[in-house]
Amino acid sequence: MMRVDLRLNAIVDPERAGGRALAELARLCAQGGATLVQLRDKQSDTRALIEEARAIKQALAPFGVPFVINDRVDVALAAGADGVHVGQDDMAAEDARRLLGPAAIIGLSVKNVSEAEAAPIALIDYVGSGGVYATLSKQQKNPPIGPEGLARIIGVLRRRAQQSGKALPVCGIAGIDAGNAAPVIAAGADGVAVISALSLASDPTAAARALRQIVDAMLAKRGT
Amino acid sequence: MMRVDLRLNAIVDPERAGGRALAELARLCAQGGATLVQLRDKQSDTRALIEEARAIKQALAPFGVPFVINDRVDVALAAGADGVHVGQDDMAAEDARRLLGPAAIIGLSVKNVSEAEAAPIALIDYVGSGGVYATLSKQQKNPPIGPEGLARIIGVLRRRAQQSGKALPVCGIAGIDAGNAAPVIAAGADGVAVISALSLASDPTAAARALRQIVDAMLAKRGT
Repeated sequence: MMRVDLRLNAIVDPERAGGRALAELARLCAQGGATLVQLRDKQSDTRALIEEARAIKQALAPFGVPFVINDRVDVALAAGADGVHVGQDDMAAEDARRLLGPAAIIGLSVKNVSEAEAAPIALIDYVGSGGVYATLSKQQKNPPIGPEGLARIIGVLRRRAQQSGKALPVCGIAGIDAGNAAPVIAAGADGVAVISALSLASDPTAAARALRQIVDAMLAKRGT
Repeated sequence: MMRVDLRLNAIVDPERAGGRALAELARLCAQGGATLVQLRDKQSDTRALIEEARAIKQALAPFGVPFVINDRVDVALAAGADGVHVGQDDMAAEDARRLLGPAAIIGLSVKNVSEAEAAPIALIDYVGSGGVYATLSKQQKNPPIGPEGLARIIGVLRRRAQQSGKALPVCGIAGIDAGNAAPVIAAGADGVAVISALSLASDPTAAARALRQIVDAMLAKRGT
C-alpha cells in the first residue's frame, strides 16, 4: 500500500485519444502535472494491451508518475505497472491484492453510498467516485451524482477510513474539466480523474497544468 | 510443465452452451471422458469470469481433469486454474510462463506453418491447431486447413519438439465432431478440441464418450 497522490488522475483510453498514441498522451499529461495515470482499454487484445502498457510505463518513468491498469491484473503484472483500478464488475480487490502484493496500488470505483459502505477499505489505496457530471467518455447507467452526491459518498468513505486508521484519497470522475473541477474539490475530493478534458485538448500539457492549478488552489483553500 | 492428455479437449463457451451452466457442462464432459477442459468467454466481465472459472474448477475436481482459461492469466491466477490457452493475439507465452510458473499448463493456438515455426516450444505444453474444418463457434478469418494442412503443421511442430527433446501434444480444433474426428487423428494429432459437438449435444456425456472412443481407437491403430 502507498499513499497515492490523486490530485490529477489522467485516464488514457484509445477510444478517447483523439488519434494520439497513448504513451505520448501519457507523457504530455505527466508533463503538465498529472499525478496518476490509468490505462483504460476495453477493446484491444491482450497482447496489444500489454505492449500499450509497456510503452506508457516507459513514457512515464522519467516523471516518476505511478501508472495503473483498468481492470486487467494480467496486463499490470506482465507490463510491470504499479497497480490496477477495478470497478465493481472487475476482479474483487481481495483477489487483486493477493495477486499483486502489498506494494501495488489498487483503486476502486464507487458509484453510490451503498458501494461506499461495502468498499474493502483495508485492501484499497484510493477510490474514484462518480459519475459526478454527464460524460461521453463512458456509457453511464445512472444519472450524474453531482458534487452533492459525491460529498455524501466521500462522507461515508472518510468515516470508514478513519475507523480503519488509514488515509483513503478519493477523486471525482466523469465529465470533469477546468470549468467544473472546483466544486468537486469543494465537495471533499482529493483530486479529479479526467479523460476527454486532457486527451481531446489541443494541448494536453497545458490542459493538465490548468486543472492542477484549480485543484491545488482549492485544496490549499481547504487547508489540506 | 506437465505432459497434457489432449485426447478430448472440451471447450466451454457461454455463447455456445445451449443454455446450460458452464460448470454443469464441464462436469458432463468430464464424465464422458474429456481429458482437458478450457473456459473460453470473450464477453463476461472479469468478476463473472472468475466466478465461472471457480465453479468449473470445483465441478472438475472429482475427475482430476485439468482446467485452463482461454487468454486470461488474471482469471487463471484468481481462480486457481491449472493454466491458460493463449492465441497469437493473447499474452505471449513467455509472459504467461513467468506469471504462472513452471507447473502451469500453457497451450498455444497455431494456425499455420509459419506460426508453427515460430512457436516457443520450450515454454508451452500443448498446441491447438486449426481451424481444421468450418465452424460456427468462432469467426474464422482463414479457410479451413483440413486434415492435410493440420498434418503439415504437426510435421513442423514434431520436428521442432524433437530437436528440443520434449513431447508436445497437438490437438486439432474447429468443426470437429464424431463424424470427422478420425481424419484429425490420422493426420497426426494427439486429440481433438471440441465445442459445439459436446455443448450443443442433447447428451454431452454420451457425445464425449463417443468422441473418446473414436480418438482412442485411432490412436491405438497408430500405435501411440
